[in-house]
Amino acid sequence: MSQFDRRRFLGAIAATGFAGRTKAFTQETTHAATDVTRTLARYIVSARPADLPEGVRKEARRTLLNYVGCAVGGSRHQTIEIAISALTPFFGSAQASILGRNERTDIMHASLINGMSSHVFDFDDTHLKTVIHPGGPVVSAILALSELRPVSGRDFLNALVLGIEIACRIGNAVYPAHYDRGWHITGTAGVFGAAAASGKLLGLNEQQMSWALGIAAAQPVGLREMFGTMTKSFHPGRAAQNGLTAAFLAAKNFTSTDLALEGKNAWANVLSTTRNYSEITGNLGRTYETALNTYKPFACGIVIHPAIDACIQLRNQNKLTAGQIEAIDLRVHPLVLELTGKKTPQSGLETKFSVYFAAAVAIVRGAAGVHEFSDANARDPIIVALRDRVTATVDPSIKEEQVRVTITLKDGRRMEKFVEHAVGSVERPMSDADLEAKFSGLAEGVIPAGQRRRLIDLCWQIESQSSAAVVAQAGRLNSGIE
Amino acid sequence: MSQFDRRRFLGAIAATGFAGRTKAFTQETTHAATDVTRTLARYIVSARPADLPEGVRKEARRTLLNYVGCAVGGSRHQTIEIAISALTPFFGSAQASILGRNERTDIMHASLINGMSSHVFDFDDTHLKTVIHPGGPVVSAILALSELRPVSGRDFLNALVLGIEIACRIGNAVYPAHYDRGWHITGTAGVFGAAAASGKLLGLNEQQMSWALGIAAAQPVGLREMFGTMTKSFHPGRAAQNGLTAAFLAAKNFTSTDLALEGKNAWANVLSTTRNYSEITGNLGRTYETALNTYKPFACGIVIHPAIDACIQLRNQNKLTAGQIEAIDLRVHPLVLELTGKKTPQSGLETKFSVYFAAAVAIVRGAAGVHEFSDANARDPIIVALRDRVTATVDPSIKEEQVRVTITLKDGRRMEKFVEHAVGSVERPMSDADLEAKFSGLAEGVIPAGQRRRLIDLCWQIESQSSAAVVAQAGRLNSGIE
Repeated sequence: MSQFDRRRFLGAIAATGFAGRTKAFTQETTHAATDVTRTLARYIVSARPADLPEGVRKEARRTLLNYVGCAVGGSRHQTIEIAISALTPFFGSAQASILGRNERTDIMHASLINGMSSHVFDFDDTHLKTVIHPGGPVVSAILALSELRPVSGRDFLNALVLGIEIACRIGNAVYPAHYDRGWHITGTAGVFGAAAASGKLLGLNEQQMSWALGIAAAQPVGLREMFGTMTKSFHPGRAAQNGLTAAFLAAKNFTSTDLALEGKNAWANVLSTTRNYSEITGNLGRTYETALNTYKPFACGIVIHPAIDACIQLRNQNKLTAGQIEAIDLRVHPLVLELTGKKTPQSGLETKFSVYFAAAVAIVRGAAGVHEFSDANARDPIIVALRDRVTATVDPSIKEEQVRVTITLKDGRRMEKFVEHAVGSVERPMSDADLEAKFSGLAEGVIPAGQRRRLIDLCWQIESQSSAAVVAQAGRLNSGIE
Repeated sequence: MSQFDRRRFLGAIAATGFAGRTKAFTQETTHAATDVTRTLARYIVSARPADLPEGVRKEARRTLLNYVGCAVGGSRHQTIEIAISALTPFFGSAQASILGRNERTDIMHASLINGMSSHVFDFDDTHLKTVIHPGGPVVSAILALSELRPVSGRDFLNALVLGIEIACRIGNAVYPAHYDRGWHITGTAGVFGAAAASGKLLGLNEQQMSWALGIAAAQPVGLREMFGTMTKSFHPGRAAQNGLTAAFLAAKNFTSTDLALEGKNAWANVLSTTRNYSEITGNLGRTYETALNTYKPFACGIVIHPAIDACIQLRNQNKLTAGQIEAIDLRVHPLVLELTGKKTPQSGLETKFSVYFAAAVAIVRGAAGVHEFSDANARDPIIVALRDRVTATVDPSIKEEQVRVTITLKDGRRMEKFVEHAVGSVERPMSDADLEAKFSGLAEGVIPAGQRRRLIDLCWQIESQSSAAVVAQAGRLNSGIE
């Protein structure tokens, strides 16, 4: 499908990216629903690979590719080294691979570690309507599971779509109130996606699937207070592990509520001040949130992508250097300063939460990949000096995917760039070639070139694999592929 | 210490049981605190066994005894059988015991399973100010840990006290708003207790302890919607496992926020609508919530204990039989119907959430232990017929620990009982002998008599043990003790 066809397809089957946020503000609080979880369970249990439109399957393959690249790329991060070092004494038998590494462990720990690796660079996929990163919880769970139980590539991709569907629909129902309250929605909604996808592959019946969603509901992971620390990456990993645990318990008829989402003391009422259940059950099997998944061109929170995009464009178009620049003025959506308002980030992790740093590094380096958000760059005198000349002002007319950047040069010239849709958005998606390049950049230095190519091919061709386990196996360090 | 001295002691060092509930309603919302978590971390790290008053240590030993009895007694429940069957494929090496059973597993799974066993009969300890059952999360974590690392009995008891302290103080700060919102506070506050107690035994420094509390904060477990299902028992078990995980990660310098409790997007603001941080940091090391821990004489939710107490008293004083009774009228606190208002419970688990069933079984059997809340009794025609003649009315003048029961006989006689403090409350505690009898009743049929006696003695003498691991080892099935 060409990029043009892809956009038409997306437009036809689902609302545009950011519509959800404004809409949800107006939702009524509803306590009376009684069949939300059951309806969802019935859908998950009955959905077949053959039901999926090709566009959705293609987007799911792109999600898989992006996930594997991020997890391989993140696998040597200090966050992962520490987690493995701390938890190795509790590892079970060698059931599943840790992407980009030698270790093998039980599927619970593999899903945890891979989920952390996939998120540690803040470079993973994003469902922009909810800022959920669904790949981490969902793919981590089923990738591990596919090494323990026989799973065909078609079933794997179907489960991947269902997992994203469930996580993002539940997210849609409570966004933005739930997120605004302080929850890291990737973990709190993601756990349902992990449970649904895992439960699908375990062949749960409708009652068991409902219980799996209940056991998942009781284990939400993730507070926004953890942003900028290692615990942020822990969220999608633990959500994968918790969802997988829920599915295995339910498969043995471990009971839970049948009102996991809609009960008076259940997930949506307890974790959010507003909720709209029609976002969960409306058009099931007719529209797909997977089709709205996007991939980050920049290795940081999505809200500063417009600013980076604009700065790189201005830099390249005008061959700018830091020394020429007197001041950079950003007009931004309110969320930008709320989430990424750190003025003087001191570490690589902290730089991801600084729109000031991001604008500066975009000008100085012309890029904002994993290597740019580093401890060294946080202290780089040229970047720091430019960072301190960046100002950011909230502008109510600017939408989340937009920015207006004005650069004033020391010679008095001024240049301006308005970005309507940042690169990587639903409207300006990364191409398949972009995704492959991103994958290669992440995996370079971690696994050999032949293995990178093999992994890319496996992700594109997942549906023709008789065993989905080949992806995890090919993603290991020392897989035998050079 | 005599019961009389014990009550004086309790009165002297801490507020009475139910005072917290009313008080918290009047608290202001506070966002500005910045040193709550750090203060707590500093306290945990510096607290020494020698600092503990004898009364607190005694109550901690009673907590340990009650915990072990509940976990041994619950270890054969279907909930536990299913959980073990589902999770065995993921068990790590045989580091720790599962109480009352043969299996050994890694400490993470051991803490999960033991925490579930300890709660499955709803017979565990209760901090009445918050309805937290602190033993499950706290003791499960450190009992397992004591088999992996050398831990003296004195240090074990100190960690137990600290864990309860942290869980219950955090609970005090948000109760009742947090609980009213729908959270199962045993899991959501308990995880901090598990992290604190485990972290203490791992020798975390102040920074690491603060991070451990942060990692714990990101993993709250438990929604009240799960009451009446197997997932309820999962909550304290998973809280133990999550707290233990947090401590092990922090020990390797896995970073988290330093504002786990008080940050804008942190635990207290996100999970509660009110919060009073002085409940957390006030009088640290001077008053002890452990001293307020209580133990259930009846195997069900604490809120129906007054009704059972009254019914058993009326039955015994008047030699009542079900056939004589025309009607039983209960005047109860509002929480009784909110939590235990099931009119026609169909299973043993559901009967625990029916004040109607509880009153009936108390009259018919004169007891309300683990054997009374059974599937068979849920269907017993005599109990069911009497249950349907029980009415319960909310009375605003009745406090949580109170009930007014009026029984009308078929011959026209009426008899009334007002219970001011139910047996098992802080004001009418179970004696040490009561606790031993409860322990024996729970453990009978699970482990041999000699082993029951040995376990009781070890709990009373924990502080003189050079290794606290003896308790977990003596609690195994086939421990070698007859």
